[in-house]
Amino acid sequence: MPNIANDPNRKSWIEVPENSDFPIQNIPFGVFITKDDVVTIGTRIGNCAIDMGALQQLGYFEGIELTDDMFMQDTLNDFISDGKKTWRLVRNRLAELFDANNPKLRDNKSHREVVIFKVEDIEMLLPVQIGDYTDFYSSKEHATNVGKMFRDPENALLPNWLHLPVGYHGRSSTIVPSGVPVHRPLGQTMPADATSPIFGPSRLVDFELETAFITTDANVMGERISVDEAEDHIFGMVLFNDWSARDIQKWEYVPLGPFLAKNFASSISPWIVTMDALEPFRCASPKQEPTPLPYLQQTGNKAFDINLEVYIQPENGTESLVSKSNFKYMYWTMAQQLAHHTVNGCRVNSGDMMGSGTISGPTEDSFGSMLELTWGGKNPIKLNDGSERKFINDNDTVIIKGYCKNENVRIGFGECSSKLLPVIEK
Amino acid sequence: MPNIANDPNRKSWIEVPENSDFPIQNIPFGVFITKDDVVTIGTRIGNCAIDMGALQQLGYFEGIELTDDMFMQDTLNDFISDGKKTWRLVRNRLAELFDANNPKLRDNKSHREVVIFKVEDIEMLLPVQIGDYTDFYSSKEHATNVGKMFRDPENALLPNWLHLPVGYHGRSSTIVPSGVPVHRPLGQTMPADATSPIFGPSRLVDFELETAFITTDANVMGERISVDEAEDHIFGMVLFNDWSARDIQKWEYVPLGPFLAKNFASSISPWIVTMDALEPFRCASPKQEPTPLPYLQQTGNKAFDINLEVYIQPENGTESLVSKSNFKYMYWTMAQQLAHHTVNGCRVNSGDMMGSGTISGPTEDSFGSMLELTWGGKNPIKLNDGSERKFINDNDTVIIKGYCKNENVRIGFGECSSKLLPVIEK
Repeated sequence: MPNIANDPNRKSWIEVPENSDFPIQNIPFGVFITKDDVVTIGTRIGNCAIDMGALQQLGYFEGIELTDDMFMQDTLNDFISDGKKTWRLVRNRLAELFDANNPKLRDNKSHREVVIFKVEDIEMLLPVQIGDYTDFYSSKEHATNVGKMFRDPENALLPNWLHLPVGYHGRSSTIVPSGVPVHRPLGQTMPADATSPIFGPSRLVDFELETAFITTDANVMGERISVDEAEDHIFGMVLFNDWSARDIQKWEYVPLGPFLAKNFASSISPWIVTMDALEPFRCASPKQEPTPLPYLQQTGNKAFDINLEVYIQPENGTESLVSKSNFKYMYWTMAQQLAHHTVNGCRVNSGDMMGSGTISGPTEDSFGSMLELTWGGKNPIKLNDGSERKFINDNDTVIIKGYCKNENVRIGFGECSSKLLPVIEK
Repeated sequence: MPNIANDPNRKSWIEVPENSDFPIQNIPFGVFITKDDVVTIGTRIGNCAIDMGALQQLGYFEGIELTDDMFMQDTLNDFISDGKKTWRLVRNRLAELFDANNPKLRDNKSHREVVIFKVEDIEMLLPVQIGDYTDFYSSKEHATNVGKMFRDPENALLPNWLHLPVGYHGRSSTIVPSGVPVHRPLGQTMPADATSPIFGPSRLVDFELETAFITTDANVMGERISVDEAEDHIFGMVLFNDWSARDIQKWEYVPLGPFLAKNFASSISPWIVTMDALEPFRCASPKQEPTPLPYLQQTGNKAFDINLEVYIQPENGTESLVSKSNFKYMYWTMAQQLAHHTVNGCRVNSGDMMGSGTISGPTEDSFGSMLELTWGGKNPIKLNDGSERKFINDNDTVIIKGYCKNENVRIGFGECSSKLLPVIEK
């Protein structure tokens, strides 16, 4: 079925500001709550949020096989479970419905009034119930930087790193949408000069610039997904801030990996941008040397050219750009990550989320964490207001932005913004 | 409210065979499906499964504040969310209802016929929808054994081990109830004499003898649960086999912890034994030296005397006992684990599961994995049929049993049994 929603010549009868992340070629999916406390699945064009539950009740999805309440739910899990063909049918239908030349909804004022909201009048919720969340570690630059700082500068990459996309399990219960503030964590740390650990607020709270992808039901337990089939089971992507407490992490992570240093909070952008929308931005991924084992060998362009930016905004201040990176730098692709994750028969469900790992680029201004940008706190960053940061201060807001752009169209993610509040002392 | 369900003198009008794990003093909770495809929450006395959904419809829980369909659900999550007071009221009610001296249901044949099933006529399902699953590493003997084998025999415990209950996140999607077979995983391993990794079926599939506890909604994000309050948020316990592929684990686990070596499958016993039922079996936990930080300091007996056994049963053979251990050997208690898990503000939800980590005792026959029992495969175990095992063979069934016993009563878990099927080659 053709992906007609990507037609770069289409214009919408909804106004789309210049440089908007959400032209009619995007059509992302999310969940929001209206002022009247109605929760619905929706999409976004320009600065308008569109109530797909209302659209469905008004018959605008007729002809597409959907359960009656598909879009009147508080998560996208069931829709995602319906599979790629349905995602494409629905996205195509929305493109046609909001096409400048289609009068059907455009000229129906009473319908428009119940379907279209200003984005400032709604609140975005978590788009999926995340069953399991996995985080990978797939940027060679990031793994090298961390290896240089914490292990051996001469052998920064561990022996397995070039052979498999290293990953680990994270915690779903503390993943929150953009806009929800998070608290500095308490925890146990071992100061450099101490012989026993101390307890208190983490002193080294950091962001990690990541993206994440959302899967559909992909396999039954015991069976695997091939690298060639993997992309068919990916619904879309979000921006992801994997909040990290570096001092807690350093003390706890050997031998079983990061735990409390990560699971106090993670933040995602609320609109899931579909793989269909990202299709025009495919590009080559870095050459893999040595060649991976056959189950990880891929053909074609499986990377995506997504510009990524991180800003820090102090309380009552303006935002300062602290990193510019790109998703295309990732050594391991999403297809390889999903093939690896399931090669042992691990079941993947609709709504599962898999993070990329910190996305650091080749230059110092493209590193994806304060740990790397300040090289462990040695080289503080200066913000626009003249203040310095080694890590994130209380009441700072960290904002991740991401977008793809070519001569025809800009497809963006909006932002993943979250404020770090002080520790709750009790 | 008194915990009258524990009265050791109570007898049931349902016959309870000698040495049954399920006397009327147990009253565990589970979910099962009947021959007629009805899914319900239930309990067990002797060899009878009791349909609590039917009991509720017949009015037997009148006077207890419950939603109308509380027990007509396919998971215990909502019931667990109701909290400790409700759990106790329901368990007390069931004790009274099945008391030998209570004629109400005993003498109502038509009611009995729709409420009581033989256990061989039902199929046990997963009792909860597990949101997040965490596995700890809290047996000092196990951590020491592993440290001796893989790291430094002179410094087997890592520096953080005595200061905090080391834990990591696992995967919920592949946790299955007793009786569901699991497949040997495929994966990437690095042979000792090789310079590049190979791909194929794991050659070193192992069990891990564990228990796990199930939590209720315990806190909001950012807030913590004190060690003194922690037990109030634990609903009950199950037996747990944390299937492990040692060769995959060895190659993948540095630096972010075990991943595909664990997430192909984990098995649990299907009846959740409540903390109320386990109350008579409290005992002291090992002395902790050095004294942990204040947030981990506990008073009173927070360990439980639970006898644990592991059997291997070859295809068409009889079961051979390969390990006898006890939950009381655990260095870190469940209360400490939960306090540590939430000290950073990590939210815990109803139905979350936390594994103990491998429960190895002080003697060689009490080790909780083949890795330790055979000391890395050096000392194979002989089974009753004369065959030897270094690790688990295809078509072997691993059976974990667990029970508490004092002069008055035996409270057991039934079993966690799962067969290892060959790899699915495709």
